[in-house]
Amino acid sequence: MFEFQILAKDPRSKARRGLFSTPHGQIETPIFMPVGTLGSVKGLAPEELEKAHAQIILANTYHLYLRPGHELIARMGGLHRWINWPYPILTDSGGFQVFSLGAGSKKGGNKVKISDEGVEFKSHLDGSRHYLTPEKTVEIEHALGADIIMALDECAPHDSDKNYARQAMERTHRWAEKCQKRHLELEKDKNLPLHPAQALFPIIQGTVYDDLRIESAQFIKNLDTPGIAIGGLSVGEERAVMNHVLEILEPHYPANKPRYLMGVGTPLDLLEGIERGIDMFDCVHATRIARHGCFYNATGRHHIANEKFATDPLPLAPEDPQNPTTKFSRSYIRHLVKENEMLGIRLLSINNLYFLLKLMEETRLSISSGNFIDFKELTLKNFHDIT
Amino acid sequence: MFEFQILAKDPRSKARRGLFSTPHGQIETPIFMPVGTLGSVKGLAPEELEKAHAQIILANTYHLYLRPGHELIARMGGLHRWINWPYPILTDSGGFQVFSLGAGSKKGGNKVKISDEGVEFKSHLDGSRHYLTPEKTVEIEHALGADIIMALDECAPHDSDKNYARQAMERTHRWAEKCQKRHLELEKDKNLPLHPAQALFPIIQGTVYDDLRIESAQFIKNLDTPGIAIGGLSVGEERAVMNHVLEILEPHYPANKPRYLMGVGTPLDLLEGIERGIDMFDCVHATRIARHGCFYNATGRHHIANEKFATDPLPLAPEDPQNPTTKFSRSYIRHLVKENEMLGIRLLSINNLYFLLKLMEETRLSISSGNFIDFKELTLKNFHDIT
Repeated sequence: MFEFQILAKDPRSKARRGLFSTPHGQIETPIFMPVGTLGSVKGLAPEELEKAHAQIILANTYHLYLRPGHELIARMGGLHRWINWPYPILTDSGGFQVFSLGAGSKKGGNKVKISDEGVEFKSHLDGSRHYLTPEKTVEIEHALGADIIMALDECAPHDSDKNYARQAMERTHRWAEKCQKRHLELEKDKNLPLHPAQALFPIIQGTVYDDLRIESAQFIKNLDTPGIAIGGLSVGEERAVMNHVLEILEPHYPANKPRYLMGVGTPLDLLEGIERGIDMFDCVHATRIARHGCFYNATGRHHIANEKFATDPLPLAPEDPQNPTTKFSRSYIRHLVKENEMLGIRLLSINNLYFLLKLMEETRLSISSGNFIDFKELTLKNFHDIT
Repeated sequence: MFEFQILAKDPRSKARRGLFSTPHGQIETPIFMPVGTLGSVKGLAPEELEKAHAQIILANTYHLYLRPGHELIARMGGLHRWINWPYPILTDSGGFQVFSLGAGSKKGGNKVKISDEGVEFKSHLDGSRHYLTPEKTVEIEHALGADIIMALDECAPHDSDKNYARQAMERTHRWAEKCQKRHLELEKDKNLPLHPAQALFPIIQGTVYDDLRIESAQFIKNLDTPGIAIGGLSVGEERAVMNHVLEILEPHYPANKPRYLMGVGTPLDLLEGIERGIDMFDCVHATRIARHGCFYNATGRHHIANEKFATDPLPLAPEDPQNPTTKFSRSYIRHLVKENEMLGIRLLSINNLYFLLKLMEETRLSISSGNFIDFKELTLKNFHDIT
């Protein structure tokens, strides 16, 4: 289980094509993973995710822990069965929520108390206080039963000073060790109900400091887990900074394990990441912009509310007749979105996920045929962030 | 076109089974028609309506006239093509909106000015003033292109005095004649873009007065249209009053044409109407209660927010494994609804429509086998409005 086969490498970049085996099926990489925060990719049913060619989806440990609670989901047979998604699932650790609630941030660290033992935070739902340790995070993720589970990390702000960045990185390393220890214990624990194997991915931190990033990559590599992740990017820093960090990191990853760049991204970010050796991505962006009326197609990002679409008989993405929304005109979808009919946002969401997943398919083919760089250039040349 | 074949009659009631032919396919009666006010049955895609066994859906002329406008829809190829529903569609006339905006009501007739020529009203969207005549209504409905189009009527409140009820009824009759005249003109007009035939259904009014209802039925029957409708019921009067009016009316309908009871109903109302010779129904009830967290199954109406469903592994309607929502547990759907995830309301909506449409299927079979009354009694015996 959790074998990672590298099927092809691009001769002119660090891009690679792979196949990652999990208990709920194989994942073809590079891959984009739609986000189902509360156990549902917003607005979409599992069959629509299949139509969009999703292979693996995310769920958020922080949210599901607070409501309805991981014990309830375990009692209902685990996440896969409960949400009706028989394919691979990844759960995050809640670490990013710790960050986004304000720990270490200049704006306000008062909502979160962080120490080596773990993190105390207030629920965004009712203000109740909760305490997450690395061990407890792993226990929750075992109860949820995802195929890939993330270690607890501290995602320091990109503008942290080096001293804080180091502190957060070192804590992330200690937590990764604790997560791994508890994970191995739970895997061996015969008293637990039988459940499929899970892969723990620890997370490289170090913000924007080259030496910290390299130190972190070496530490994480030494844990010898089935895969690793890169955290703390795409959190406000410039795109050039992210690309630089990924270039610095690349020689220090384990060569033959999947690398997951967390919280990225846009079509451009995906291609930039792949060029620098990334295999897996997740982001709420595609479905979030759909809820704001935006859609992707080969020419760029567009806003359906634009008056020019009122009588436009074309589908959202006329270049691709396989797009699952192809039967619906922009004119009708614009009407639905303007009238707040749920179907409108749903069609934009399906379109946007399908667009990114199709981009990943084409990327994989371009890697196999050795022309990823040409493919990337042509794609971006046609793709404008136009209204 | 618009043939109505009666396939079976129940020996112990006025229930009948039929087949109504339209340009977009046949409709098996008795049938329930889901309501897609703005050209979308709230939350559902056409393929889900098919899975719920919908044969014909409604759209609201009043809403589509105001936004995006019937000319736009005509320009986009008509309603069927625009909304991606290749099966039969019925459009109402806007008459009911006239009523619900307050004409003749004790609460406030100030928003609507009604005269023999037509009705002047303020848009609920922006307060702009609009004028609908019977002729204009038919012109709008021709532009939309539904298979069945309704004549403009005045739906007087159920508590109108007899004088007003007569006035409204007589106006409804004059409008029906005007609608029919304009409809026949438009059908002959060679300058119009080719479009399939449409059936105009005029509407019986007369509120709760037996003699007015009979007079109205006779007038409407004499127009010799492909079908007729009964309006002004299920608008606040007691159920016994509705049933009484339907019994009074039954001998006065055209025998071999479909009869459509507008704005009804609940599972009980459907069966009561069918027993009294009704063939077609529409109502927003099933999808509206879904948006409030309610679902139907064989034992009655339930509220998904009920605590007892939190860990309930059963599907919404365990008695029917063909139900299109059967893969999802009540536990998961409750979570989705409580978290305002769109998928929750969507699953409840599909379930409720499927429930009513399956009830219609079973009703048709019971009519064919001559035991509709037993079927009705057994169904209602098990069905309680619980939780």
